[in-house]
Amino acid sequence: MSYPVGAVRVLRVDSGSSASLDDLLVTEEPLEIRLGHGPDHDRAEMRLSVTMRTPGHDEELALGFLYSEGIITEPGQVVRIAYCQNVKVEERGNVVRAELHPSVELDAARWQRNFYTSSSCGVCGKSSIEAVHATCLRPIVPFGPIDPPMITALPDRMRAAQTVFKHTGGIHAAALFSRTGELLLLREDVGRHNAVDKVIGAALNDRSDVGSCILLVSGRAGFELVQKCVVAGIPLMAAVGAPSSLAVELARKSGLTLIGFLRDERFNVYAPKGKD
Amino acid sequence: MSYPVGAVRVLRVDSGSSASLDDLLVTEEPLEIRLGHGPDHDRAEMRLSVTMRTPGHDEELALGFLYSEGIITEPGQVVRIAYCQNVKVEERGNVVRAELHPSVELDAARWQRNFYTSSSCGVCGKSSIEAVHATCLRPIVPFGPIDPPMITALPDRMRAAQTVFKHTGGIHAAALFSRTGELLLLREDVGRHNAVDKVIGAALNDRSDVGSCILLVSGRAGFELVQKCVVAGIPLMAAVGAPSSLAVELARKSGLTLIGFLRDERFNVYAPKGKD
Repeated sequence: MSYPVGAVRVLRVDSGSSASLDDLLVTEEPLEIRLGHGPDHDRAEMRLSVTMRTPGHDEELALGFLYSEGIITEPGQVVRIAYCQNVKVEERGNVVRAELHPSVELDAARWQRNFYTSSSCGVCGKSSIEAVHATCLRPIVPFGPIDPPMITALPDRMRAAQTVFKHTGGIHAAALFSRTGELLLLREDVGRHNAVDKVIGAALNDRSDVGSCILLVSGRAGFELVQKCVVAGIPLMAAVGAPSSLAVELARKSGLTLIGFLRDERFNVYAPKGKD
Repeated sequence: MSYPVGAVRVLRVDSGSSASLDDLLVTEEPLEIRLGHGPDHDRAEMRLSVTMRTPGHDEELALGFLYSEGIITEPGQVVRIAYCQNVKVEERGNVVRAELHPSVELDAARWQRNFYTSSSCGVCGKSSIEAVHATCLRPIVPFGPIDPPMITALPDRMRAAQTVFKHTGGIHAAALFSRTGELLLLREDVGRHNAVDKVIGAALNDRSDVGSCILLVSGRAGFELVQKCVVAGIPLMAAVGAPSSLAVELARKSGLTLIGFLRDERFNVYAPKGKD
C-alpha cells in the first residue's frame, strides 16, 4: 500500500546558508490498467495502458480514463474494477483490472493510448478534433451566461480543499463544481490527466449528472484535458493557466465554454467565440 | 507551416467589467514520429509515437526522443530526420521520419511508448528505475559541490531568454547550462517532455558534451523528466517546482544531483542523499 505523500531528507539552501531537514514529497508510482471479460486473468485479458500517478482513487482513475477516452460509453459497460491479485508482491496496488460487460468487444487496435491522433484519422489539428467528436455520444448543452463573481470564487474553494498540495506544493488538482459554484468533487494527482480522470470516474460512480457542471484545473488547458471534458459532456472548463490553440479550437467547435488565466478577479473567455 | 504562437479573439473579464481583445496562444499540434530504413516510405516503416507539441525544432524533438527513450544509443544511428512528404496536405509539417542506420533493428515490441514500465519489467517503482538503468550506457559523472549563487541565478537567465512565454504565459521551458551557469540552449513547448527532448536533440546535433551540464525545467520534476536526464547523462537537474517521490529515488540511485523549488535565493537538494 502506497501513501500519496512521503517524507524525504533534503538539504535546504536559503540565501547561502543551508540546513538538513525533512521535506514531504508527492508519491508517484506506475498504474497499469487491464481489461478483460469474465473471471480474473482469462486469456482475452488486455494490458491497456500504464500511467505514472499518485496512488489513491485508482478505480475512479481507471473508470474515468475508460470513459473520457471513449473506450466505454456508459458506466454500466464496466462490471467491476479491482486491484489484480495475481501479480508480484511489489506490484500489488499498481495494477487494476476492469471487467467489461460481455457486450463490449475487446478491440486492441481501437484502444491504443494515442488513438485520437493515430494514423487512421490523420495527424493534424482538424482530424484530432474530428476524432473527439466521433467519440462523443452526447453533445454538450451550452453553459450559457457566466456570472463573474461565481467564477472568480472557484480557485480559492479548490485550494482550500486540497490536502496533498498543502503538504508538498507539487501536485495538480481538478475539481467539479455545480453550475452555481458549489464544490462537488476534488482529486489531486502528479499527472494533470489523472486528476481529471479521477474526477470524471468519481462522478460516474456517484451517478452524478455532469451535464451542467464546471470543471476547474490547477494548471494549463491543453487539448487532451479539453478533450476529456468534451467527451464527458461537461459544459464549462476553467483553468488557472493558459489554454493552447488546439484546446480553444476544440472548445469552440464543441459548444464548451473555456475559461483561462482564472486568477484573482480576472479571467479570459476563449470559447464560445466572441465578437471580432 | 504552423507558427508557435497565434492570435485569438477573447473576452477579458476583470473585476466585473469586460472587453473583447486579441490574446496570443501557444500553438499545439500533433507530431507523429516514424522510423524506417532506406528510402522514404519503405515497407518496414513503423509509426513510433504521436505527441502533442508546439511546432518548431521538430527534428530535434524526434532525435532527443529517440535518444532519451533509449531507442538509439548514439546520434550516429540516425542517418537523417525529415518531414514526410508523402502525407496529406493538412498533415505536412506534422509527420517526421527518422531513417535509422541499417545496423539498428526496427523492434516494435521494445519501442512501445511506455516500455519502461511495461509488463515485461513489472509495474512498480523499483522496476521502473531498473528499466532506466538498463537503458543507460554511460553512468553519470557526479556533478560535485554546488555553488548556490550560480544555481539561484539560473531561473532568471532562462526566463530572460524565453520568447514564447513572454507572449502567451502558457508554455514550458527547458534550458541547458554549462557547469558554470552559462546558458547554452533553450527550448519551449506546450509539453514538458517535448521541451526536454528538444534540448537533448539540439545538444546531440551540436555534438555538445552534456556530461558536465545542468538542465533547468520550468515546472515540476517528475519521474519521466529525470529519466531523460539520466539516460542522456546530464549530471544536474534543477526544477522550479517540486519533485516526485520516484524522481528523487531515481536520481539518488543514478548519481544525478536533483534540485527542486528553485526560486529567488532558495532551493532544496533532493539528491544525492544528505545526512539523516
